[in-house]
Amino acid sequence: SLGIGDDCAILQVPKDYELAVSTDTLVAGVHFPLTASAEDIGYKALAVNLSDLAAMGAEPAWLMLSLTLPDENADWLTGFVKGLRQLMDQYHMQLVGGDTTRGALSITVQVFGFLPKGKALRRDGAKPGDLIYVSGTLGDAGLGLKKILNEMQCDHPLQYCIDRLNRPTPRIATGKALLAFSHCAIDISDGLFADLGHIAEESHCAALIHLEQLPLSDELKTYYKDAFDWQQILTSGDDYELCFTISPEQRANIKQLEKQQNIALTCIGEICEGQGVRCQHRDGQELVLTHSGYNHFK
Amino acid sequence: SLGIGDDCAILQVPKDYELAVSTDTLVAGVHFPLTASAEDIGYKALAVNLSDLAAMGAEPAWLMLSLTLPDENADWLTGFVKGLRQLMDQYHMQLVGGDTTRGALSITVQVFGFLPKGKALRRDGAKPGDLIYVSGTLGDAGLGLKKILNEMQCDHPLQYCIDRLNRPTPRIATGKALLAFSHCAIDISDGLFADLGHIAEESHCAALIHLEQLPLSDELKTYYKDAFDWQQILTSGDDYELCFTISPEQRANIKQLEKQQNIALTCIGEICEGQGVRCQHRDGQELVLTHSGYNHFK
Repeated sequence: SLGIGDDCAILQVPKDYELAVSTDTLVAGVHFPLTASAEDIGYKALAVNLSDLAAMGAEPAWLMLSLTLPDENADWLTGFVKGLRQLMDQYHMQLVGGDTTRGALSITVQVFGFLPKGKALRRDGAKPGDLIYVSGTLGDAGLGLKKILNEMQCDHPLQYCIDRLNRPTPRIATGKALLAFSHCAIDISDGLFADLGHIAEESHCAALIHLEQLPLSDELKTYYKDAFDWQQILTSGDDYELCFTISPEQRANIKQLEKQQNIALTCIGEICEGQGVRCQHRDGQELVLTHSGYNHFK
Repeated sequence: SLGIGDDCAILQVPKDYELAVSTDTLVAGVHFPLTASAEDIGYKALAVNLSDLAAMGAEPAWLMLSLTLPDENADWLTGFVKGLRQLMDQYHMQLVGGDTTRGALSITVQVFGFLPKGKALRRDGAKPGDLIYVSGTLGDAGLGLKKILNEMQCDHPLQYCIDRLNRPTPRIATGKALLAFSHCAIDISDGLFADLGHIAEESHCAALIHLEQLPLSDELKTYYKDAFDWQQILTSGDDYELCFTISPEQRANIKQLEKQQNIALTCIGEICEGQGVRCQHRDGQELVLTHSGYNHFK
């Protein structure tokens, strides 16, 4: 690629590969707390975009950065670049362009990744009978955000949850490995209920979630003391885990992948005929949600 | 391409082509007046990005849009999309992704275009002896902005200059045609002096501008009544014309291109040994600028 310093970046895609491209904007006070450190913001701006690549099964290659800043602040920029670089270096990514502008703090990152032609994990790839899996644990970041915003009475520092909010882990390696076993994935950015809803809608299927099978962190379990706020867990944003589907005969491969990558991959339900997402307790009782997920314009 | 509705867009680049990618952010009050119409903003957000493709000689293909809006406003959105669509349709472009966010009005557009492998017009392609050309006329948008901001005493409506500010013409066809005659171009977004300075710097050469050869619109000439503010003309932003260099033997081809495309392509100076950009009057007197161009952080 031609790199920074010309009017455009010039990208060459390897033969037999397609280019996966995603863009996400982070705005102060919306996508990160106003108190977030520059380093966390830099990390997260790239992490949430990498999560989109992970959800397609793509290999990260390049990024572009559009930074809008209220003023020149060398310390802030140094921190921001440090956080960004941590993930860039981890995935050997190259910055190929972007611009800086004066205005309210806002960060737009575009990421580019390679995909073997025709192999992408897509939202419309689920079929009735498929099992639904998620990586990692759910609801941590949402709880961390409540803690930061002082929206609850709680003496527990909830540091793990706050770290999950500020430093989500893009599941790149898992997404790439899933190309061999799955046709369908999404990253959970707006809560499992809403994002699994996208899979159901695009695949013209229904999805059934077994609530007690949802993978939860020790810290979250400690906080809820078994009185789980399922609505919160299902609809809070910023998990950045993968939700994917497989046909049941791939179950053993997923077990193996869990061990290889030292990551929890948990079966949480199944794809059925019909439409919409239903959430069921072990005793058969259904949970009806009063809202479906994080929405910036709500 | 997979299109909107999945985690990433998937782009396939034709054999023997590279992908040219550019991104630009427009912030209210910085890149367009707070009074600008939604339609003009939509048009300009794409135009300034297409101008970057034009400067490489690329053929527009796709765009992505990240829109940050203070609130839901259907009328504003309708106008914005109408302006954006005008250029999308003109260049048969497809919207392949993006996101919307709540916050201070800000628009980031990424454009993707095709380039025959290894043929791009680059900033570092100029050589001593080359002639320097610009398309269209210079300084109109800058004058239009002064008018809008009420920074001057002037009864003339300057509508042409204001239109040039709000509706710049990306020189796509010219950029593509130049691939046959030129190796070096840039689009003039920050004023000729600064942008020609990038060519000089990247090409390790100097550039000499003959002031009286600069192409000026009738409206601008009428306004200045022969008392030209050269500093303003050379350093005001938003022209979005092309500045390119050719070897002298290509002169006839440029004449032909002018006729074919019905566009003014004017020789304004030459590339020399040395460094920096010098501006000379017909009588040999040099103009020394007190600042070099538009800079958002100045």
